[in-house]
Amino acid sequence: MNTLEKMILDKALVLDGGILKVDMFLNHQIDPHLIMSMGKDFHEHFKNREITKVLTVEASGIPIALATALEFDVPVVFAKKGRNKNVGPDVYTSQVYSYTKGEPYEINIFKKYLTADDKVLFIDDFLANGAAAKGILDIVGQAGATLMGVGIAIEKGFQDGGALLRGMGIDLYSLAIIEAMEPGKITLREHE
Amino acid sequence: MNTLEKMILDKALVLDGGILKVDMFLNHQIDPHLIMSMGKDFHEHFKNREITKVLTVEASGIPIALATALEFDVPVVFAKKGRNKNVGPDVYTSQVYSYTKGEPYEINIFKKYLTADDKVLFIDDFLANGAAAKGILDIVGQAGATLMGVGIAIEKGFQDGGALLRGMGIDLYSLAIIEAMEPGKITLREHE
Repeated sequence: MNTLEKMILDKALVLDGGILKVDMFLNHQIDPHLIMSMGKDFHEHFKNREITKVLTVEASGIPIALATALEFDVPVVFAKKGRNKNVGPDVYTSQVYSYTKGEPYEINIFKKYLTADDKVLFIDDFLANGAAAKGILDIVGQAGATLMGVGIAIEKGFQDGGALLRGMGIDLYSLAIIEAMEPGKITLREHE
Repeated sequence: MNTLEKMILDKALVLDGGILKVDMFLNHQIDPHLIMSMGKDFHEHFKNREITKVLTVEASGIPIALATALEFDVPVVFAKKGRNKNVGPDVYTSQVYSYTKGEPYEINIFKKYLTADDKVLFIDDFLANGAAAKGILDIVGQAGATLMGVGIAIEKGFQDGGALLRGMGIDLYSLAIIEAMEPGKITLREHE
């Protein structure tokens, strides 16, 4: 059991409506040692792949991506959510549907920071339906870059994103996979 | 001259309209070694102060706050910008005026992650007019917490934020202070 899995079982809360609260250590308050350990865990899994860039989406993916990029000694590029006015010919854009908000948003990456030479590791905090991952895959494709793998902190194993990405042959590595959850009880999938 | 100052002189661009572009290493693409060195530099300055929490604002303050929190061995809490629907009695809120966008936005911190016992170091990537810092000061005040210092990556020394915070007696430490800039030329203030 890795550090994140222990932290989930110790501290995470499940609210009514299927909401997993991990904002005491992951996405509002952040435990820096946990984050650094996650970077090491992702490196351990993907270290035999050539990686030139770690991609993520703002905001809570950024610290995990930073910790991972430090291990690989490569830059992070984080996609900005559609609030900047810089969208134009210099920017790759994709639409992401937010199930939480019930509407789409844009993610943007400046073209100069993602090229056809790049071998990309996409890191994010959550994988549920895979909406953000699909947007990143779209942008990686637009750039002609190569996706080398996807590293996720917490995968909701009872939603479709994991099967979708694994079905595409993508090397998806999730540090913790929630098999089932209800208020007071979280069941993690065992590692193979 | 610290690592950030060297990077600014080597790589930053000044666009027409007084825009400083550092998105090749700080706020879109991120150089992880630079970020870690900034954490060490902030720790060196503030290490004699008791710090229980590093506060920042999403998104580009997060990696710098993480690197700093790691040195102090304390958690990061990042204020969320007013897009979540969680605002209510459990949340501290403040209005921040965005000069870039010409309109205010909200920043929010869950009350349980900032208490009257906290001794706060606020870390951010930019200081210009001090709008975000004022919002954080407001929230720190609402919580009854104590502000121990403010660490800024890049202060625009020709704008009012620095004088405002120093005039309040706040220990403000900026890794790089831009004295003047025009396309092709950036002048940094020398350290005292």
